Amino acid sequence: MKVISQNTAFDGMQGVYAHESDACKCEMTFAVFVPPQAISEPRPVLWYLSGLTCTHANVMEKGEYRRLASELGLIIVCPDTSPRGNEVPDELTNWQMGKGAGFYLDATEKPWAEHYQMYSYITEELPSLISQHFRADMSRQGIFGHSMGGHGAMTIALKNPDRFKSCSAFAPIVQPSMADWSAPALEKYLGADRSAWRRYDACALVEDGARFPEFLIDQGKADSFLEDGLRPWLFEDAIKGTDIALTLRMHERYDHSYYFISTFMDDHLKWHAKRLGCL
Amino acid sequence: MKVISQNTAFDGMQGVYAHESDACKCEMTFAVFVPPQAISEPRPVLWYLSGLTCTHANVMEKGEYRRLASELGLIIVCPDTSPRGNEVPDELTNWQMGKGAGFYLDATEKPWAEHYQMYSYITEELPSLISQHFRADMSRQGIFGHSMGGHGAMTIALKNPDRFKSCSAFAPIVQPSMADWSAPALEKYLGADRSAWRRYDACALVEDGARFPEFLIDQGKADSFLEDGLRPWLFEDAIKGTDIALTLRMHERYDHSYYFISTFMDDHLKWHAKRLGCL
Repeated sequence: MKVISQNTAFDGMQGVYAHESDACKCEMTFAVFVPPQAISEPRPVLWYLSGLTCTHANVMEKGEYRRLASELGLIIVCPDTSPRGNEVPDELTNWQMGKGAGFYLDATEKPWAEHYQMYSYITEELPSLISQHFRADMSRQGIFGHSMGGHGAMTIALKNPDRFKSCSAFAPIVQPSMADWSAPALEKYLGADRSAWRRYDACALVEDGARFPEFLIDQGKADSFLEDGLRPWLFEDAIKGTDIALTLRMHERYDHSYYFISTFMDDHLKWHAKRLGCL
Repeated sequence: MKVISQNTAFDGMQGVYAHESDACKCEMTFAVFVPPQAISEPRPVLWYLSGLTCTHANVMEKGEYRRLASELGLIIVCPDTSPRGNEVPDELTNWQMGKGAGFYLDATEKPWAEHYQMYSYITEELPSLISQHFRADMSRQGIFGHSMGGHGAMTIALKNPDRFKSCSAFAPIVQPSMADWSAPALEKYLGADRSAWRRYDACALVEDGARFPEFLIDQGKADSFLEDGLRPWLFEDAIKGTDIALTLRMHERYDHSYYFISTFMDDHLKWHAKRLGCL
């Protein structure tokens, strides 16, 4: 693991690191904020998965999570959104496919399958690296994210309810297999058989029996992707009749940007902290 | 005035605007955060001046000022650091001169004088625009900034003690006329006669009789520019025997980045809010 940068912030340390990924077969970069409490004891890990076009850097620069994470004692891990590098296939003019658009899945189709193994990367390889290199209490993990990363957080939580104690999302894509901006990517990554897509679709996972105790979703009503791509009410419908609890908050005037994310960041950190035993 | 973007954040509005500047003879861009309280009453204005290489955007994205500014009811204005555009002279390979490096002064030398009138822009033209377009209480203004912008804030406060009720700085250049990274710029902008530089040098201004009641300065001890360029102790020396009060805080492990700025942003906002009658 290579140190790209380390900056003291809020008495903790914001670092950026890179490593050769076995899962993605390329160098991967990620950000980790370590709170000051980690000097004396292992601290819970909160995973933040970013949206389309983002890298690890967007939320690190604009998410405003450090003040409260430092106070609560949370380690915040921000992975990249796809494999990177010249050898990695891409669709240069399509921001919804390829680099910056890994959809947190393990691709099965050519030419994507060789590098686009983000599900394995996020759920296996990177946790192992984090547990080796940081003072992390891996028995206390939460996961959240934005947009495509909200989709990632929710589907990963639904598939790993024993690993994660908490999950939340900012403006998530809750049904990517049916949304115009994600279905074409799922087809390219996973093939034409739509049954394979259901493992990466929060609504379909619930229909197929996956369970996670409770979710917090914040959504701006002035989000230009709301009606076509995000549609959190579909998840509200999907969990009806199950024991899954959902706190869905719709916010007047808020859009899809980091101005929205940073506004509600504190609420999400507190949501996780409470369930991770830090509040 | 042209609206570039407006995003709801922390119940207020983060906007970016552009206008044709008379002072700088080019289009200038600036950011304004308006807190929710401005819906019902005029609110105090806090000016943030950025450092070398920055635009209005850096602190807007990475400064983390909105949460507390919203709570305290402060309008935050973030101007650009220099004139911009193809017709504006520049030194492309020199980050300490030209675009991104206006030093908040009125240049007198060719070819700089035509556009580089940042002192007039910040102290006359932009305040007039702000008072016309925003619900601002111009009788309550504070000013702060970072590095070159800390120099800007301190010198502008010292020259306008009746206008500003508060001043603070993150890692300011307190004696730009003597520092290696700023003296060459002052020479190009103002000519070889060093007496003209003293109006843009906080230490020299104090020596020449300028006064402002009190300053807050935060400085990281791991700041790589500390010894050669910043040297806040020179300002500490300059105010000895005057009635100027200085709170100078030196912080172990902090560097010159926005990680440092954002960490101490709340303290600065509170410093200003108290003196602007919002705390």
